Parts: sequence; C-alpha cells; structure tokens
Amino acid sequence: MTKISALDLPMVDPLPEATRKYFGICQDKLGLVPNVLKMYAFDITKLNAFTAMYNDLMLGPSGLSKLEREMIAVVVSSINRCWYCQVAHGAAVRQLSGDPALGEAMVMNWRYAKLDARQTAMLTFAEKVTRSSAEIVEADRQALRDAGFTDRDIFDIASVAAFFNMSNRVASATGQEPNPEYHSQAR
Amino acid sequence: MTKISALDLPMVDPLPEATRKYFGICQDKLGLVPNVLKMYAFDITKLNAFTAMYNDLMLGPSGLSKLEREMIAVVVSSINRCWYCQVAHGAAVRQLSGDPALGEAMVMNWRYAKLDARQTAMLTFAEKVTRSSAEIVEADRQALRDAGFTDRDIFDIASVAAFFNMSNRVASATGQEPNPEYHSQAR
Amino acid sequence: MTKISALDLPMVDPLPEATRKYFGICQDKLGLVPNVLKMYAFDITKLNAFTAMYNDLMLGPSGLSKLEREMIAVVVSSINRCWYCQVAHGAAVRQLSGDPALGEAMVMNWRYAKLDARQTAMLTFAEKVTRSSAEIVEADRQALRDAGFTDRDIFDIASVAAFFNMSNRVASATGQEPNPEYHSQAR
Amino acid sequence: MTKISALDLPMVDPLPEATRKYFGICQDKLGLVPNVLKMYAFDITKLNAFTAMYNDLMLGPSGLSKLEREMIAVVVSSINRCWYCQVAHGAAVRQLSGDPALGEAMVMNWRYAKLDARQTAMLTFAEKVTRSSAEIVEADRQALRDAGFTDRDIFDIASVAAFFNMSNRVASATGQEPNPEYHSQAR
Amino acid sequence: MTKISALDLPMVDPLPEATRKYFGICQDKLGLVPNVLKMYAFDITKLNAFTAMYNDLMLGPSGLSKLEREMIAVVVSSINRCWYCQVAHGAAVRQLSGDPALGEAMVMNWRYAKLDARQTAMLTFAEKVTRSSAEIVEADRQALRDAGFTDRDIFDIASVAAFFNMSNRVASATGQEPNPEYHSQAR
Amino acid sequence: MTKISALDLPMVDPLPEATRKYFGICQDKLGLVPNVLKMYAFDITKLNAFTAMYNDLMLGPSGLSKLEREMIAVVVSSINRCWYCQVAHGAAVRQLSGDPALGEAMVMNWRYAKLDARQTAMLTFAEKVTRSSAEIVEADRQALRDAGFTDRDIFDIASVAAFFNMSNRVASATGQEPNPEYHSQAR
Repeated sequence: MTKISALDLPMVDPLPEATRKYFGICQDKLGLVPNVLKMYAFDITKLNAFTAMYNDLMLGPSGLSKLEREMIAVVVSSINRCWYCQVAHGAAVRQLSGDPALGEAMVMNWRYAKLDARQTAMLTFAEKVTRSSAEIVEADRQALRDAGFTDRDIFDIASVAAFFNMSNRVASATGQEPNPEYHSQAR
Repeated sequence: MTKISALDLPMVDPLPEATRKYFGICQDKLGLVPNVLKMYAFDITKLNAFTAMYNDLMLGPSGLSKLEREMIAVVVSSINRCWYCQVAHGAAVRQLSGDPALGEAMVMNWRYAKLDARQTAMLTFAEKVTRSSAEIVEADRQALRDAGFTDRDIFDIASVAAFFNMSNRVASATGQEPNPEYHSQAR
Repeated sequence: MTKISALDLPMVDPLPEATRKYFGICQDKLGLVPNVLKMYAFDITKLNAFTAMYNDLMLGPSGLSKLEREMIAVVVSSINRCWYCQVAHGAAVRQLSGDPALGEAMVMNWRYAKLDARQTAMLTFAEKVTRSSAEIVEADRQALRDAGFTDRDIFDIASVAAFFNMSNRVASATGQEPNPEYHSQAR
Repeated sequence: MTKISALDLPMVDPLPEATRKYFGICQDKLGLVPNVLKMYAFDITKLNAFTAMYNDLMLGPSGLSKLEREMIAVVVSSINRCWYCQVAHGAAVRQLSGDPALGEAMVMNWRYAKLDARQTAMLTFAEKVTRSSAEIVEADRQALRDAGFTDRDIFDIASVAAFFNMSNRVASATGQEPNPEYHSQAR
Repeated sequence: MTKISALDLPMVDPLPEATRKYFGICQDKLGLVPNVLKMYAFDITKLNAFTAMYNDLMLGPSGLSKLEREMIAVVVSSINRCWYCQVAHGAAVRQLSGDPALGEAMVMNWRYAKLDARQTAMLTFAEKVTRSSAEIVEADRQALRDAGFTDRDIFDIASVAAFFNMSNRVASATGQEPNPEYHSQAR
Repeated sequence: MTKISALDLPMVDPLPEATRKYFGICQDKLGLVPNVLKMYAFDITKLNAFTAMYNDLMLGPSGLSKLEREMIAVVVSSINRCWYCQVAHGAAVRQLSGDPALGEAMVMNWRYAKLDARQTAMLTFAEKVTRSSAEIVEADRQALRDAGFTDRDIFDIASVAAFFNMSNRVASATGQEPNPEYHSQAR
C-alpha cells in the first residue's frame, strides 16, 4: 500500500464498529475510503470531529448547492496549492457538474470558468477569505448580499472557505497523499 | 448588548438544554460565554461540530501543553491579524503562563519571546503552516523531530495551527467581536 | 466556433500556403491546430517568429528531454496561473510520461511529484526564474552544475522557463482559450 | 574582454556570413553589438529566433511608437530588476525621447513621469501583465480601448510586456552583462 | 539590568548635564526613561537628533491630536511587527484615549476600531505609506483633503508614518527591548 | 519654477538668517539647494531636525565610508522605488565612486555590482532591514560581525537604512521632485 502521509500514525486496530461501518459506506458510495479519513483514524475522536464538521458543511442543508461548496473547496485549495484537496475535490467538481473543464478551471484559474454574477461574487469572497481575511470589511459582505446571498449563505461561504484553509494546511503539513483513483474520475 | 458579528444570525431560541448547560459551564469557568459560541448558536449542529473539534484540539490529550497550543493559536491569529482570536487567545496565553509579556510577544512578534529551541521549532513550523504550507517538505517535519517532537506531536502542531487558520477566517469574514472582558484579563 | 481569445483579431484569410501546410501537420500529428497558433495567425510574421522559437526550444536538440521541457512549461504556467498553458502543456506531460498523476502534480504542486535530485534541481531553478529572477546568483547556477547539468543545459532550463513566462502573459493578457480536446487527453 | 554572461557558451567560430553581416549592421547603427546577441551566438538557430521576434516586436509596424515600446520594455525590466535590460533599454528611452529624465523615471518609478492618459493606461496594463497576469479580466482590456487603443494595439502592449518578461529572465538566469557603453549614452 | 538591545553600545559615562536633566524629566513624567533613549545615549549627537525630531513630530504643534499621532505610530509599528514600538506606543494610545481596546485594535487590526471617516482616511493613508509608498498618487492625497485634512496635515500624517518606519527598523535591526513597565499601563 | 512637491506648503518668507546661510553653503558645494530642504523649509524646526539627523548620519564620523552610506541609501530607495532619493543619491554614488556603473547597479540591482564580501554583507543586511525587519535575528547581526563590522558599524548600517526608509516615504507621500541637475551629474 502507498503511504497516505509522511507521518507514522497507524490506524487504530481494530477500528471501532461505527468507523468500520462508515468506511464501508464510503467504499460503497465513492468506490474508495478517502485517505484523509484513514489518516485521521489514528485517533477516533479526531476522526469523528473532522467528519462531523465536514459532513455538515459540505453535505448538510445550505443555500449553496453541493457543487458550489465543492467549487469553493477547489478554489481555496488551488490558492493554497494543496495536492490532496485539489485532486480529491477537483474530481468532485467534475462529477457533480458533469463538466470536466469546470473542475480544471477551479484548479487552474477560476476566472476562466463561465460563471454567473452570483458565483463570481461567491468565489471572489472565498478568495479574499483565503488571501487577506484581515482586510474584509462590510462592503465585501454587502457585495454578497447584492448578488442575492442571505446572511446565512454568507456564513456558509465563509465557513466552507475557512474549512479548506484548515484542511489544506493539515494535508500539506502532514504530507497527505490522495487516493490515486481520483485522477481519472469524470474526465 | 453589543453586536457579536456583522451577520444577522440570531441564536436558536430557546437554546436546547445541553447547550444551555454548556454555556453555563463556560460562564462558571471563564466568567463569560465566548462570543464565538454565541455566534455559532444560530445552528446547533454547527455549534456542536465546532466545540467538539475545539475541545479535542485545545483541551484533549496531547504532547503539547495547553499553553503551547494557545501560543500557536495566537501566533497564527497574529499573522492573519484576526481581531477576535488575538484578543481571546492572547488573554489565554497571559493567564496560562502568568507572564503578560509572553502574551504580548505572541501577538506582536513571537521572535522576541524568550523561548527554548523546542518552542522556537514549534512556532517556526506553525508560521510556515500559516504562510506557505504548500512549500512544506520533509526537512520541515524532520526539524521538529530533531527538536524532540513525535509524529503525533507534529500532527498536533499542524492541526492546531490549521484550526486557527480556519477560525481566524470565519471570525474575520463574519466580523466577529470578542467579549470585552478579555482585554483586562491577566495583565 | 468558440472564441479563441478576447481580442478581435481574425486570421489572415486566405492563409498563406506554408501556414496552411503547417496547420495541416498539426492536425495530423496532434488531432487539432492549437488555438495559440490560430491566434497568432492574424499576422504571419508574428506567427512564424513564435513557432520558430517554440519549435527550437521545445522540440530542438537539448540535454533536456522533451518531457522535462514540458514539465518546466507546466510548473511555470501553474505559478502564473495561465489557463491556456496549464491545459495544453498539462496534457503534453500526461502524454509524454504516460503518467497522468505527473501532469496533475506539475499543475497543482510539483513538490508532490516523485522526482529524482536532477529534476528537483531543474524545477527549483525554473521556479526561481519565474518568481524572483533578480535574486538569482552564481550559487543557483552551481546547484544545477552539481546536479549534473552542463552550462548549455542551464541555458535551456532558463530559456524554457523564460519562454513560458512570456507565453503565459500573452495568453492571459489576451484571454486565450485552449482547445477543449486537451482536457480528456491521456487521462 | 569582459564576460558577457555567467555561462561558458562561446560563440560559434567562425560566425556564419549572415550573422557577421548582421553584427556589422549593429556596429554601424548602434556603435556596438549588443551583448545579448553575442550571448545567443553560441547557437545560430536560437540567435535567429530571438532576433526575428525582437525585431518584429520592437521595430516592426505597430500602433505603438518605438519609444512607447521601449518605455514598456524598461518598466517591465524595472519590475523584474533585470540589470541588462534596464541598462540597454533605459539608454534607448533616453535616446528616442531626447529626455534623459524620462529614461530614469521608467527605471525608477514610472508613476513620476509626465504621461498623458493613453500612456498611463498602457503602462498600467504592462505592469499588471508583469505582476499579476492571471488576474487580468475584460475590464483591463476595456480600459485600454477606452484610452484609444485598438485590439491590435492591445496585442502589441501585451506581447512587448510579455517578451521582456522572457528576456529579463534569460538575462538574469544566465547573468548577462550589458555593454558598458550604454551607461553614458544620451545623458 | 535587562539588556536594552542586542548591540554592545554602552551609554556615554558620565552623561552630559543636559542629557541627565532630560532623562530626569522623562522619569518624572513617564515614570521611566524609555529604553530607546538609553540606547541612543552611546552618542549624544545621535540622541539629540532623535529626540529633536521625535518631540517635534509627536508633541509639537499639528492639526493631528497627540492621540491621532500615536494611533499612526502603532498602526505602522504593527505592520512592521516592531516589538519595541508596539509595546511603548500601544501603551500611549491606551493612556491618551482612556480606551484600552483602542490600543489593542491599533496593534491587532485597526479596521476593527470604531473610527470616524476622518481617522479611517488617516490610517488608510498611513498604511499605504508603510506598505507601498511608491504607488501613492494624487488621488490618495486628495482622499485626505476630502476627509477634511489640510496639506500641512497630510505632511504630518506622512511624516509620522514615515518616522515610525525608520524607528521600527532601528529597533528591530538592533534588537531593542521595551521597558517592561509599559505592559501593564492603562489596562 | 517647477513644483517641488504635490503639497502646497510654501517656504517661510523671509527665511531665517541661519537657513539662508545654510542654503548658500549647499549652493556653493553642490551647485544647488536640494529640493528636499526647500520642501522642509515651510517649518524651520522640522528643517533643522531633518538636517541635524541627516548630516550626522551621512557626513558624521562612522566606520562606514561616505560612499558606503550612499550605497545603502540608494539600495533602500530602489527597493522602495523612491523617485527623489534614487535620483539624488544615485548621483552621489556616481560622484563619490567615480564609477557611473556602480550608481546604476545600486538603482537597478545591487547584486550585479562588483562588491567584496564586506559590502555584500552590508547591503544584504540593509535589504533585510528594508523588506522584513521583523524577521531580523541575532544571526543576521552576527553575519555582519563576521564580515568585520563592529557593533557601532551595525548601528550605523541599521540607522542609515532606516533613515532612508523614512525619507523615501516622506518623499513619495508628498510627491517630492528632485532637482533636475542630478540626472546628468557624474555620468
């Protein structure tokens, strides 16, 4: 098996029943258990905290579509040049959109994607959250409201962008490797 | 009451029993309910995900002392110039260390704190995680091992630094205001 | 037909015989005429100057393999976030290497590719040529010699990296669009 | 003779007839053979590709005057801090304009030159092409059209700026030295 | 006694009468002799030049209040992350304003202070003077005039901001340590 | 008469006797009264504070030669792209060194000047003082000691570099214009 990170942190063995079940669901639905989950599985409390936050943010109820949340994920990961997250979430954008070029544009330069005003505003904000959050002022939030977003939507854009600023850094700091299956998905 | 953020996201009302209990514990132990928790309380699932991850990272078992984790928190928040987190976690460093100047140095320029080689290595890594995580290579992790850290410690440094890169961005993107009580604590 | 750039600069019509022949060869060998060539074809002198330089650099005799030159092309284009060149030359790396993940790593973060010391030195230099050429000193060139490169090889690394710093900027300044066929090639 | 670069790449000896003729023309017209040409003369194909592109861009037909093209050359070279190109093209600006202070301003800080709105727009675009080409959007091109430039002019501004982003990097990566005669010209 | 800098530059001994008197006044008025003065006291000409400029700028006649000048001092020192000046002038802002949170905001992120349009314009200009003075154009000065500042006020904002860009660098380059008394003042 | 700055701050009229004398000395020695002095002459206290500090730093006793201090001045002014100071102090380097190319190299890219190890160390430190003073640590000072500088010399390098970080910013913020005579001096 390929290494899944640069740290020597083996999975809890045996995995608790609930974790095994969860990994089984991943295998069924995605055809793989994402390496990031195997990585966190050296400590089940940390794994559970990560998946609880991830699943709420990316799959829970929101004014943003799942595709939009994945678009934010890839744009942030591209700015931070996170290998793991660009590979895994680039695949998700291709899959959810059925548009491989859209996934590539999120990785390479989101300004070249064909986006409407709403999604342009969304990614402009996500980029500022990533690059210069200290300079965000009320006018930046108002620009989102003007593009049709509610305050709850703004919270969701901010927290998805922020989450990948965390996740990118854990992945890069620990040298995480993505599952190789992602590369050829939905091309 | 002062606004706790720039978004109009009122707390769930009434709060669930468990949340009320948790806020009560905060009030007893800290003398206040941190505004970040009141902020997240517009959605209890999000609040619980946040506190589960926070409490594990900052208060759970680790080779890093609680003070060291707070030092990382402030150094990261200072680089990102997050108003909320510098105020709240600066106070925590002053309190846990009993050394007000140490808290100030974490906010202003950590290189001026009197640190041993271990803590210098830890904050050097946390700074790189924050500023240029894409350029982290094995030599950076090895420098931590050479300073006496285990692979699990490296994971903890990485994930505390990464967590505040998330938390800083949520706070700045949503315009969070810290509880004013922090300013005068442990001076 | 899709726009190939944001400028209204139609191809010379009819194209000169030699250009038509050259485009025919492209079509036969690559299955497409690269949009960058159609773009330059508003002025045949410019087209010829571009192809002469390109073909010498990328296909002419050199101590660098064609794959190595394409790797430099993509790393530079990724730093400059050039949409056109990442798409077109990312495909070339996948094709020449038969390793789709290598192409992805050049686009996303070259430090995650499995490279030997020679290629690491080559891309380290190409990155410095791109980001901070004014700070290149003799020690940077010596590092290449120590990795086994001749002075002629150093010239070639420098000029391939420099060429894409030009080409990226023409493409981005004029809003060039890559041929859509590239996206699915060699996945 | 002074070294003309840091690489050991001697000129082809004897030079081909056509090259000797071309160098003779340079000597007659400029009073010197620019070191960049002697540098490329280790490989006549590369020399010819370079001069073909250079001569078309800088001396061929264009809506930009020769002085304007040289102004772009110096502004780009100043941002990239290229020793060779600032010296050689700074001299050209002084010579073509008859205004030594203009040449100095292009080197030192172009915002202090007395420029009309057209040339200000031109150099603003050239600066963005150099510093952050990935962020160029239609509004940047439109600003040039509003200042009176045609789409062909925009192509020329982009490609002159882009060319010096190449040429600066070759010169800096190979340690090119300008002919000393430039320093005192047109002061 | 704690070291006041990283350089071995002992004070003139004995101090001249005038210097002793001046230090006595500091002790009476501030409760301490600022370490920066003791630092410069290795050379009385340098000490006098520094205090003459400082006292005129910070205490002399101006359209800016003393508090406003200290606010600029801290914002500049925060951008430059100068340990000495953030500590000493942060205390001054707390003292002059009677508002500890204002001093903290100047150190941590001035955009979170409650400021009127005039002071926002003033600090926006001071930030640009610090970060990118070469890009200041007439429009930046006009913005200050529009906010109610005279040309003399603009000079004062510029020169206070510029002075701390000097003072921060002397302090950081020489490793100056602030008097520890500052930390607890006016909390 | 050309404007000497963008601010409407006329000289005191009549100038005090001492100022007139001082300007007379400038005229005799330099052939001109530097515009920076005329600029400050709207307020004689400010003018005197500036000249006292300037004359001590640049002309007073020091282990650095006057040429070395001017070299620092130009390197700092080039990083900050200050029009006034590059013009005026570039002329000073040409004049004091009798080597026009040295003045040009300080303006354009100091790494291309032929410098010994001592001067290379000096300018490396001056550059760090200018760009990232907060990251200066003891090793940076030790590198100067290893190159033969005393602690007093280190203070002088630091304070000359710091002074021009001030002076550049006043000049750029106020739009100062250099005397045109400088351009042709010592070419």
